[in-house]
Amino acid sequence: MILSFNQATAQNWPLPDMIKGCAVAGVTQVGLWREPVAEYGLQRTVSLLADAGLAVSTLCRGGFFDRPDWLSSNRAAIDEAAALGAPVLVLVSGGLPPGSRDIDGARAHVAEAVSTLVPFALQAGVRLAVEPLHPMYAADRCVINTLAQALAVAEPHPSEAVGVVVDTYHIWWDDRVYADIARAGERIASFQIADWTTPLPEGALTGRALPGDGEIEIGRLWRAVEAAGYTGPVEVEIFNTELWSRPGDDILAATIRAYEAFS
Amino acid sequence: MILSFNQATAQNWPLPDMIKGCAVAGVTQVGLWREPVAEYGLQRTVSLLADAGLAVSTLCRGGFFDRPDWLSSNRAAIDEAAALGAPVLVLVSGGLPPGSRDIDGARAHVAEAVSTLVPFALQAGVRLAVEPLHPMYAADRCVINTLAQALAVAEPHPSEAVGVVVDTYHIWWDDRVYADIARAGERIASFQIADWTTPLPEGALTGRALPGDGEIEIGRLWRAVEAAGYTGPVEVEIFNTELWSRPGDDILAATIRAYEAFS
Repeated sequence: MILSFNQATAQNWPLPDMIKGCAVAGVTQVGLWREPVAEYGLQRTVSLLADAGLAVSTLCRGGFFDRPDWLSSNRAAIDEAAALGAPVLVLVSGGLPPGSRDIDGARAHVAEAVSTLVPFALQAGVRLAVEPLHPMYAADRCVINTLAQALAVAEPHPSEAVGVVVDTYHIWWDDRVYADIARAGERIASFQIADWTTPLPEGALTGRALPGDGEIEIGRLWRAVEAAGYTGPVEVEIFNTELWSRPGDDILAATIRAYEAFS
Repeated sequence: MILSFNQATAQNWPLPDMIKGCAVAGVTQVGLWREPVAEYGLQRTVSLLADAGLAVSTLCRGGFFDRPDWLSSNRAAIDEAAALGAPVLVLVSGGLPPGSRDIDGARAHVAEAVSTLVPFALQAGVRLAVEPLHPMYAADRCVINTLAQALAVAEPHPSEAVGVVVDTYHIWWDDRVYADIARAGERIASFQIADWTTPLPEGALTGRALPGDGEIEIGRLWRAVEAAGYTGPVEVEIFNTELWSRPGDDILAATIRAYEAFS
């Protein structure tokens, strides 16, 4: 699998510098986020990518089906992914709606919302990728918390329309994960690697480590994803305050080293 | 279910004051922790409990099978539970051994260690209760993260020897939890309630809320545990820095109010 550099790993690196840095370093794929793309300009980003010869592996992210504007927001995200030539739009489902404790209801709504988006995704040629997030985010960020749940959302639809994300950080603890990766097969639309360290920081969001620096058997998960037939890029996506404080080129170099240790 | 007050909810309340406070408030059961009991003295604690007419619902805790002294430590814990008349010893399995990423191996070791303890538990008349902890503790505290995993550890053994703990805080996010509670049936050795709030604090340990103050469908889980046939006490066990700062009597009163809102 070739490396794709997710821009969230260097979230303070301006978009044009990031694209240039990747091109210089020989990284040919990037994972982009909607907010910095919108800030720089969608068409300007498309031009930059073309000039640099970079492909976009995934656009992060749609989903957040707990918000009232989810349909318009996700339709816009699909269109943006298509414009960027991103084959995959990552969906993070969102948590419980304000004031609600009905997690079963929230999960059922996610499945319905994804169904609603399928025709738009097929028309745009963009694959929706349902990402399970670690159960510690179930209340406030994502009610889809296991690969099995993500697959249950995806499987009623054509594989080219809806796949799943396998991100080591979110699923490593699950005793069923190897069986579910095998079951996922061609549903795997994106493979992302980040490592787990403790103690978790306040908010539990920014404590991820470069692959190899934590507790996860990343090599074993990597081989399982390969054995399931996945041949796409491996994205490194790290939320880490200390990492973010470094110069972008340094972060990219550290990312490439971590990737090469596993590849 | 009657209330049992777990002393960790008021961890700064001296043991004799806690016992007196519970007796005065009409609470007839307490959950105790090994460290404060040892500090005050095991036999002195037994006498205090007898004088106050209190029963011990659970002793917290054995387990931590990742530590070299797990066998002697757990045998001592079983003996302490027997001395206190506690019918249940809660087992928190421990995380990954230092330097290891082999979570499957750690889980297999937990199952073997529990098997090793069964004869001692049966002889002492103490039931071991395997507690699944939230997956955010998988690396550093507990590799048993779902009720299904806890049941898999318990089920090879007689029900009077090994049961499971259902703690709302740890299992609420699991889409299989209602099926697993029904499957657990008489294996449920302890039911504990605490609520989930965000953002998580640094370390993710002390952010639990009183039942009703968070995101969990506690009433639904309560009814499921009752429907599974459980008739024992409900323990309130809250790790919360703000709560701990209050006077013990205030914490107990707030706990009783929270309990009564569900009972």
